[in-house]
Amino acid sequence: MSTATTDRRPAPSAASPDEAVAAPQVDVEALGAQLLGRWRDMRLAARAFAADPRMAKIEGLPVPEHRARVLEQLKTLAAEADVLRAFPTRLGGADDHGASIARFEELVAADPSLQIKAGVQWGLFASAILHLGTPEQQDRLLPGAMDVSVPGAFAMTESGHGSDVASIGTTATYDPETQEFVIHTPFRGAWKDYLGNAALHGVAATVFAQLITNGVNHGVHCFYVPIREVNPDGTAGAFLPGVGGEDDGVKGGLNGIDNGRLHFTNVRVPREDLLARYGQVAEDGTYTSSIDSPGRRFFTMLGSLVQGRVSLDGAALNAQKLGLTVAVTYGNQRRQFTGASDTDEVVLLDYAEHQRRLLPLVAQAYAGTYAHHSLLDLFDAVFSGETDTPDSREDLETMAAALKPTSTWNALEALQVAREACGGAGFMAENRLTGLRADLDVYVTFEGDNTVLLQLVGKRLLADYANDMKGIDVGGLARFAIEKAADTVLYRTPIARAAQAFADQGSARRSAGHLRSEEAQRDLLTDRVETMVAEVAQALRPAQKMSRDKGAALFNEHQHELIEAARAHADLLYWEAFTKGLGEIEDAGTRQVMTWVRDLFGLHLIEQNMAWYLINGRLSGQRARTVTSYIERLLRRLRPHAQDLVDAFGFDAGLHRAPIATGGERERQDEARDYYRRLRASGDEPVSEKSMKKKAGSKR
Amino acid sequence: MSTATTDRRPAPSAASPDEAVAAPQVDVEALGAQLLGRWRDMRLAARAFAADPRMAKIEGLPVPEHRARVLEQLKTLAAEADVLRAFPTRLGGADDHGASIARFEELVAADPSLQIKAGVQWGLFASAILHLGTPEQQDRLLPGAMDVSVPGAFAMTESGHGSDVASIGTTATYDPETQEFVIHTPFRGAWKDYLGNAALHGVAATVFAQLITNGVNHGVHCFYVPIREVNPDGTAGAFLPGVGGEDDGVKGGLNGIDNGRLHFTNVRVPREDLLARYGQVAEDGTYTSSIDSPGRRFFTMLGSLVQGRVSLDGAALNAQKLGLTVAVTYGNQRRQFTGASDTDEVVLLDYAEHQRRLLPLVAQAYAGTYAHHSLLDLFDAVFSGETDTPDSREDLETMAAALKPTSTWNALEALQVAREACGGAGFMAENRLTGLRADLDVYVTFEGDNTVLLQLVGKRLLADYANDMKGIDVGGLARFAIEKAADTVLYRTPIARAAQAFADQGSARRSAGHLRSEEAQRDLLTDRVETMVAEVAQALRPAQKMSRDKGAALFNEHQHELIEAARAHADLLYWEAFTKGLGEIEDAGTRQVMTWVRDLFGLHLIEQNMAWYLINGRLSGQRARTVTSYIERLLRRLRPHAQDLVDAFGFDAGLHRAPIATGGERERQDEARDYYRRLRASGDEPVSEKSMKKKAGSKR
Repeated sequence: MSTATTDRRPAPSAASPDEAVAAPQVDVEALGAQLLGRWRDMRLAARAFAADPRMAKIEGLPVPEHRARVLEQLKTLAAEADVLRAFPTRLGGADDHGASIARFEELVAADPSLQIKAGVQWGLFASAILHLGTPEQQDRLLPGAMDVSVPGAFAMTESGHGSDVASIGTTATYDPETQEFVIHTPFRGAWKDYLGNAALHGVAATVFAQLITNGVNHGVHCFYVPIREVNPDGTAGAFLPGVGGEDDGVKGGLNGIDNGRLHFTNVRVPREDLLARYGQVAEDGTYTSSIDSPGRRFFTMLGSLVQGRVSLDGAALNAQKLGLTVAVTYGNQRRQFTGASDTDEVVLLDYAEHQRRLLPLVAQAYAGTYAHHSLLDLFDAVFSGETDTPDSREDLETMAAALKPTSTWNALEALQVAREACGGAGFMAENRLTGLRADLDVYVTFEGDNTVLLQLVGKRLLADYANDMKGIDVGGLARFAIEKAADTVLYRTPIARAAQAFADQGSARRSAGHLRSEEAQRDLLTDRVETMVAEVAQALRPAQKMSRDKGAALFNEHQHELIEAARAHADLLYWEAFTKGLGEIEDAGTRQVMTWVRDLFGLHLIEQNMAWYLINGRLSGQRARTVTSYIERLLRRLRPHAQDLVDAFGFDAGLHRAPIATGGERERQDEARDYYRRLRASGDEPVSEKSMKKKAGSKR
Repeated sequence: MSTATTDRRPAPSAASPDEAVAAPQVDVEALGAQLLGRWRDMRLAARAFAADPRMAKIEGLPVPEHRARVLEQLKTLAAEADVLRAFPTRLGGADDHGASIARFEELVAADPSLQIKAGVQWGLFASAILHLGTPEQQDRLLPGAMDVSVPGAFAMTESGHGSDVASIGTTATYDPETQEFVIHTPFRGAWKDYLGNAALHGVAATVFAQLITNGVNHGVHCFYVPIREVNPDGTAGAFLPGVGGEDDGVKGGLNGIDNGRLHFTNVRVPREDLLARYGQVAEDGTYTSSIDSPGRRFFTMLGSLVQGRVSLDGAALNAQKLGLTVAVTYGNQRRQFTGASDTDEVVLLDYAEHQRRLLPLVAQAYAGTYAHHSLLDLFDAVFSGETDTPDSREDLETMAAALKPTSTWNALEALQVAREACGGAGFMAENRLTGLRADLDVYVTFEGDNTVLLQLVGKRLLADYANDMKGIDVGGLARFAIEKAADTVLYRTPIARAAQAFADQGSARRSAGHLRSEEAQRDLLTDRVETMVAEVAQALRPAQKMSRDKGAALFNEHQHELIEAARAHADLLYWEAFTKGLGEIEDAGTRQVMTWVRDLFGLHLIEQNMAWYLINGRLSGQRARTVTSYIERLLRRLRPHAQDLVDAFGFDAGLHRAPIATGGERERQDEARDYYRRLRASGDEPVSEKSMKKKAGSKR
């Protein structure tokens, strides 16, 4: 709904909603444009493509047919949908990483299986060639991966090792006699597992293995390995000699993807097919690398994986927005139980509990979207080379590790609450909520398990604290923070930058002021992160003087607090991004309403962690009560804008495809009301026994 | 693991775990027997049947095949599985209601679709005939419903009205000329919807409609209506004249059930097919009923629906226990990342965060199981006629309305956390977690939407409070509490009975004492319920003097608090039931460990609601910190008993069927360790570049 013709009063101060315009309106179109962000045209084009019926998920399709359909869709994408922008211009791409991710994120609305199948093909398999290969290897191997004539698997994870990539068991031993690498799976736990394209469609794989040459293990490297024959019609045939595997079978979701397992029995690949950007083996077996430290080399090679986390963050936000659009729209139409009058039933969204359940999730989706803009900007700056420094890479890793867990868990919560808010209708697959939730489920554990990622963020926060406290005895904690950093490079630079990058943070110690004020919210949220980190750091100080096992035990005792600190950090990132986004809204009415949304988000966070604020003396019991009562006022204020707020997400009926949110419910109710109106008018309406008895009773 | 031969010290006092035996052991067998409860043999027989491969859910089966399989399973149940105990002895049943529900609850382990299909056939369709029909109607209509020669739908819910049954639109108008009722669907919103057996298999339905005779609407009554022809082979044929409908299609789960919609266009049924136990229409159209009040009659007729809620409570607990068994077993075998040593990786359950996530859910499943025993006892007492008074019926309704939401939401939480705790393996359908979660999803909104049920509990709490405060001006709230009671009879008797029924409650105002003590936990949990209810009651006092719409608005403002009070009440029911169960454990070691489990449950509840205790001055900040640190001590104490605690649930491999929890993971790890051990012993192990560099560095 455009509000161009609406009469509006002057812009209120963002920090004092009470003095604001009486009845502000949301400029849905302008707000929607802001949410689409920097790659707006790209996203709109991708959404148009996602709304193409050829791309739609057909609910209940048997697994084999779903897999075949998604493979066809993938080829259609390659041919028609401008999906290769991340690849080199010389090979037909555009070297345009941010745009490529933005486009990819929108595919989730069509079918998350298609999104992830595309992610496997271009974001993982082809991307390994792009980021780990030499220019010669790119020229030779990328074209087939790009045009999907070579569907490929990304063979990193093993059955025995999920998030702990450094410990994989697969070996690649160099044989100088034949100048080949021998790829070998030494035991069942080292089978590659959960790989998209492995069960059926893949004809090659980028295989991660321990590179061994001249008796030395140089750590994990990546190899290009053909795995299946190619049939004359271009489809995948039988496994090549030495390669074996099996189908992972039915999954909890994403059943359009043929995940499977692979194993290798002394499979030989030429020396040239070690993807050699960061490490090379000469004919005689001599290993060389431009990165001297094996640890640093490992993290560098795995660095490109961050784009998976970045894109899942955006996709998870889109799924939330789609689900909330369906639930809020239905909640604005569906009526249940009579309220103030005998004949008119109440619209669901007028119930306070319904608002309580849905509106904070809408606010959260806004916050996440603004945070994602910052993440994607940083990603683009790093991957375009604009600011590709070790520091900015580390900031990117940390921010992705904080945001991906937050948005993927939020997506499961939002989709579940949305489904429950729609009752039995929400359980019908056609309304999308259950299918999206099932598909998104694995987003919380793949591309880095959420808990593992948050622990990495926590370690980075600790390391930064140690760095800030130089000279003070925090060696013990720094040691653990650095030692345990698994497959990312989250160490040795101040985390504060990540938040400051997009916020004028001000002093966290500023006096609290009014709870509703922006400053008060910022202070409370910032203070919590800082205090929690400092407490864990202090608790870990004794680790320095402990044996390894005792130190590990002490660390383990504080694991939960560390993860909570990381969550608090992510909360702060969300809030700062929202506040920055708020500052960029020009329309006064929109800014007013969005200030309420931001306040709802911030105060809801504070309410959720109220025990911490009370225990630590940051809020009094009296103040705590005012938080809850102000949240209730905000819910009432926002209720009339709920539809505008989800409409601005831009997931219209063509994209969400949910029959309950396309007016059918309203039509049915209008028909029912007409029926009763006509019945009353006709004089044929039966008298109710209840009212007869009431009348009889009152006459007595 | 039996502990019969274990050396044990004398029994500790349940309230002081610190003075307890040094290394208590759990008697898994005895604890398991306690968990099976009063109908132990019935449950064991049902579990044996659920473990029959013919009953197993086949993951990924296309919807039509899954539906056909479940129909066959249903017939097998009828023929072989002693499932008709709830029906009259004269018709081949046993008039044994508790046993029947206990057996039914165990079916969830086979396939929740089978459980719910059985629930539709016997718990709803046949049950309507049983509870709403006259003896003559039972004799005539029950046999076909019992032996599934007449698959039937329970046609109550309409597209336009979910939980609000009183407002349904379908009419049944008596025509004295032909002595028939005319069943009619006046508009699209009055289509019957979400009905199991309606899409394909049903040949009859128990249809709820507004009974109209001689120009008077006597409210909702139930009619037996044939809906489809029966083919010569006994299968369902085409719709009968005037009946129409459609398939609900694919759902988020339970796809073994053919849910669908039905509508009626002037379908005539004989006068004799009004199920006439509570209301009859004479040949001339005169209506009579043994229950004078239309409201009371309505609630009485719907009273038998409580058995659905009771059985869903038990089924949801079984699903939790199955899921937690899989996750804890896997967590005890799966290793990830190295901890104290370089070669040995850490078992997942040794990570503090993993314990934090899983063990409180195990404690919760225990609490729920004990609470369910009390509920099922009460159900059996009421339905057997042993104590079938209006008061005990109301207590039963209230307890079911409190426990069903709690256990069904807990099930979704437990299954999700279990799935995430198993990483990618948890997402594989063969490991059951995702499928169970998808199937259980709808348990939170069907048979009474959880939020609606909790609101009913809240109203009952308010009404009791008003009753207790007689003479004080609380008329306004009583008015709303009574007016809004939807499809149950939750009013006018003291709620306190529900908790006191299985607990010597003592004084809630007793001095708090040590937090770990049983009394302190009870006082804190009880105080919270009482205070919350009193606060809502006070807030609603002005409603008495308000207009209807203003009063409704005031009630709406406090809806969230009322629902929170109902949750707190359910928490207390859980805790009291657990404490009662604890008192019945004879083995000292088991009682010791289970005391820790109960304390974990109680303190975890208090921790989750800590803000309330702090704001209301019930706990100091210092005390609050001790709650968290004691929870952490309990987790460490319970960790060695985690496997015993889930083993006692009795969901062995034959029932859970999850490959990851049957030792495969451990075997793979043993194989991998053997490989590395042999490699080291052989002298052929490659040197790692990392360790070479370290050595070189230290020589410099």
